[in-house]
Amino acid sequence: MKPIGVFDSGVGGLTVVKELIRQLPGEDIIYFGDTARVPYGIKSKETVIRFSIENILFLLKQEVKLICIACNTVSSVALPLIKSHFRVPIVGVISPGVREAVYATQNKRIGVIGTRGTIESRTYENEIKQLDPSIKVTAVACPLFVPFAEEGWLAGSEVLSVAKKYLKPLNAARVDTVILGCTHYPLLKPVIKKALGKQVTLIDSAKQVAVEVKKILVTEGPLNTGRRRAKHKFYVSDNTKWFSAVAERFLGMPLSNVEKVNV
Amino acid sequence: MKPIGVFDSGVGGLTVVKELIRQLPGEDIIYFGDTARVPYGIKSKETVIRFSIENILFLLKQEVKLICIACNTVSSVALPLIKSHFRVPIVGVISPGVREAVYATQNKRIGVIGTRGTIESRTYENEIKQLDPSIKVTAVACPLFVPFAEEGWLAGSEVLSVAKKYLKPLNAARVDTVILGCTHYPLLKPVIKKALGKQVTLIDSAKQVAVEVKKILVTEGPLNTGRRRAKHKFYVSDNTKWFSAVAERFLGMPLSNVEKVNV
Repeated sequence: MKPIGVFDSGVGGLTVVKELIRQLPGEDIIYFGDTARVPYGIKSKETVIRFSIENILFLLKQEVKLICIACNTVSSVALPLIKSHFRVPIVGVISPGVREAVYATQNKRIGVIGTRGTIESRTYENEIKQLDPSIKVTAVACPLFVPFAEEGWLAGSEVLSVAKKYLKPLNAARVDTVILGCTHYPLLKPVIKKALGKQVTLIDSAKQVAVEVKKILVTEGPLNTGRRRAKHKFYVSDNTKWFSAVAERFLGMPLSNVEKVNV
Repeated sequence: MKPIGVFDSGVGGLTVVKELIRQLPGEDIIYFGDTARVPYGIKSKETVIRFSIENILFLLKQEVKLICIACNTVSSVALPLIKSHFRVPIVGVISPGVREAVYATQNKRIGVIGTRGTIESRTYENEIKQLDPSIKVTAVACPLFVPFAEEGWLAGSEVLSVAKKYLKPLNAARVDTVILGCTHYPLLKPVIKKALGKQVTLIDSAKQVAVEVKKILVTEGPLNTGRRRAKHKFYVSDNTKWFSAVAERFLGMPLSNVEKVNV
């Protein structure tokens, strides 16, 4: 059976892998983290597109049956432009989160947080407006959240004070639903929840992506429901040591099988 | 007259450019910021070496008379191995700061702060010990300082609480001198000073590097003492817009003349 391919600019996409493993335990997964060129968030559109195509070609060489772009920057900046070039189904992290948020909001005020690249692309805003033009969207870039997540400072006064400062506009806009528009952010869920208040619903794109992948495999097949032990293999373009150390926090389990490759 | 070449993985090296302009106002300067591949701090040694050689070759094509590696990660990880390959004098940011710190300390306890790559290389520790083996060195990686500097959060409770957490081991070790071992850190000098206490001397490598460059040009020549208006040109490998926006904060003046190139 062919594996599912997943790529991200670094470790963040592992929150998506975690959900894929949880929701699709029978599927083999091949992950590629472009750690030599991370982060994509501050890079230009044309550079992000070039990197993404190289990453997709690498995964296609591994004969994957579906590709999951587990990176919000790539999904918002590059996916619409490259999707049609390939035969393999490609799933991004934007649309699944958008649909869930539009479904969840009661007061039609949705907040979006992400990297500067994601927020400046206005992709979330446009996709939400396409589904329901009456929804008011407040989008805020939170560039320090990624380094906090990678540093492992997931709780404590330091990250809470940063979260409060970033999220003030969302509280002011009285949003009832917030999309975590970056694959790193699920790690900071408790502190984001604390800064926003319990009444706000957080949309974890990783969960919704796995739901979407399952839907596609059920429709277009093949969905692997076998009971054998699924294989998970991790490739990075640099620094296997750093990746392995940080990855465990993102994946929620120890990880072996990390190999360095050139794309 | 030939220009001085300066490179860094991103914007940080502009704190060195600022000092070069201040101390050597007659010199033309060509800066290259490798913004397509920033940050180097978490990349492997072999990758940092490969990138550095490519950057040096780019500057040599611009016919520079001296190259300044305005990046602590490159200076600590790659400089010792690549220096001898080139005819042009190459100055790093480590040794000038080390000499100044060894000169400044009274109680022979020096602190060093930098990126994870710089600290793990133990280069500062080794260079200090070579000058004076009786000095006790306490080195701490502060990975969040770079994103705080680039975000422009240079003061306020958020960055102060992060600084206090990182710098606790330096206070515990009762260091009287601390080397700012990353070209981003001069921007955070006030908050670092606040966290460490006024009695601690901060060593700003950028200043010392410019002193070193001047020394070399006086000895090996030519030093440009002309009174004409010097030319400063900035190249980046990606995202001129982001670079220009952040650069102004680092350079302390508005900056035109930014061009994108492939290395």
